[in-house]
Amino acid sequence: MRTVFFISDRTGLTAEALGNSLLTQFTDTEFKRVNLAFIDSTEKAKMAANKIKEASECDGKPALIFSTQISHKYHQLLIESGGIVFDFFDAFIPKLEDVLEAKSSHTVGLSHSMNDTHTYGNRIDSINFVLNNDDGLNTKNYKTADIILTGVSRSGKTPTCLFLAIQYGIYAANYPLIEDDLNTINLPDILRKHKDKLFGLTINPVRLQSIRDERRSNSGYASIDQCRKEVNLAEDMFVQNQVPFIDTSHASIEEIAGRILNKTKLKRRY
Amino acid sequence: MRTVFFISDRTGLTAEALGNSLLTQFTDTEFKRVNLAFIDSTEKAKMAANKIKEASECDGKPALIFSTQISHKYHQLLIESGGIVFDFFDAFIPKLEDVLEAKSSHTVGLSHSMNDTHTYGNRIDSINFVLNNDDGLNTKNYKTADIILTGVSRSGKTPTCLFLAIQYGIYAANYPLIEDDLNTINLPDILRKHKDKLFGLTINPVRLQSIRDERRSNSGYASIDQCRKEVNLAEDMFVQNQVPFIDTSHASIEEIAGRILNKTKLKRRY
Repeated sequence: MRTVFFISDRTGLTAEALGNSLLTQFTDTEFKRVNLAFIDSTEKAKMAANKIKEASECDGKPALIFSTQISHKYHQLLIESGGIVFDFFDAFIPKLEDVLEAKSSHTVGLSHSMNDTHTYGNRIDSINFVLNNDDGLNTKNYKTADIILTGVSRSGKTPTCLFLAIQYGIYAANYPLIEDDLNTINLPDILRKHKDKLFGLTINPVRLQSIRDERRSNSGYASIDQCRKEVNLAEDMFVQNQVPFIDTSHASIEEIAGRILNKTKLKRRY
Repeated sequence: MRTVFFISDRTGLTAEALGNSLLTQFTDTEFKRVNLAFIDSTEKAKMAANKIKEASECDGKPALIFSTQISHKYHQLLIESGGIVFDFFDAFIPKLEDVLEAKSSHTVGLSHSMNDTHTYGNRIDSINFVLNNDDGLNTKNYKTADIILTGVSRSGKTPTCLFLAIQYGIYAANYPLIEDDLNTINLPDILRKHKDKLFGLTINPVRLQSIRDERRSNSGYASIDQCRKEVNLAEDMFVQNQVPFIDTSHASIEEIAGRILNKTKLKRRY
């Protein structure tokens, strides 16, 4: 067991993304993760150094520290803590300064800051767009949508739409294929009008059953026969109408969104 | 103008987080960003190398490449493209192997994969929780909530709740303070019962006015007097009832969520 600290003078999101990507490559070690965000004063840095020291003593091995601290004021404290520092800025900034023939500004808090109010407003608008056009409740704004996800109930449409909005500022609507829609192989009228924006999600029927079962246990809706029937009919509809689609069964929200972006070449707004 | 490529064999989210964090430190250079995700075949790697070559020629300076490719099969192609490679795994994996006395697994696609179906299900559940308990529509699930955000309309509650769910798997409800609530300095009854879970959002009245004005131009709702009045009353309520709160005016969703997590020591579920 090794304790891992993610240390940042801001949110720590980059330190975590960095560290976790690396740690997933070491499957035989068990890690205990500690996130120390907003370490932006001597007092907090000392507190962090103490925690690192304690963890290293407790583990009997030095803790790992993934740091994205831009300020170097507290760097020495981390090193003296006895942990092993993987410093993100140290690793790349010197080479970047060299390549760009420029000095880095060494300013804290730029990476997740609200640099551009206008772009930022767009991002909030795209989130609101998802909420207002979720689950086929509202189809009159499809003209404004960048993409319309469709698929059977619980195939992952809403989480994917939200991620597309939050991460990329994309206006994503979603339309659930219900039994009425699946009685024919033709696209529902409202979708046919916006065929170019359509993207299908499909899912393994057994996985779908388990997801539905958690919500409505032992219902017809969650039966394997029903799941299999709906999935087959939906896939037939996608194929027949040349709607691109992907299988969400074993993919995270990030992967689904990333693959959609990759396949559609959709332009990001954020 | 320098072209920057984010290259990954998967979603590219880590490459982008890494690269953008570094690039924000160079404010005098203008960057053109190109995201090349899912570069997982020789054909795609050659296509990427060509794009890099073209961009470098067009800029008259070598393009920058932030790579989180785990497979080294295509590494040589990137180097031969003439771009300057900042390789994320190269920078840290050797030292990590050394410290952990273990070999990295060199497996593609672990960092945003759905490793643990149970944890992953929790994350989807937390997103659904936000949607079902948004904007005070539903208050009967407050017992299950990890946190209840409150504040005036358009202070940033919904986007923050969604980010808390997607990023951290937190069950976040939100309750808007409307005029009726603000007629008294006491907390609304439903909130008083869950005082320990409350967290307030406030916002600069001028910023609030501009946000509201984009939605309902020249309405009483968007007038500066109304915004100022609501914000003052809400802040008085937070102070009087010792509800912790933060100002969202100049913070991104990531920062607001990060600061809430930091202040409340709320436990992540994801």
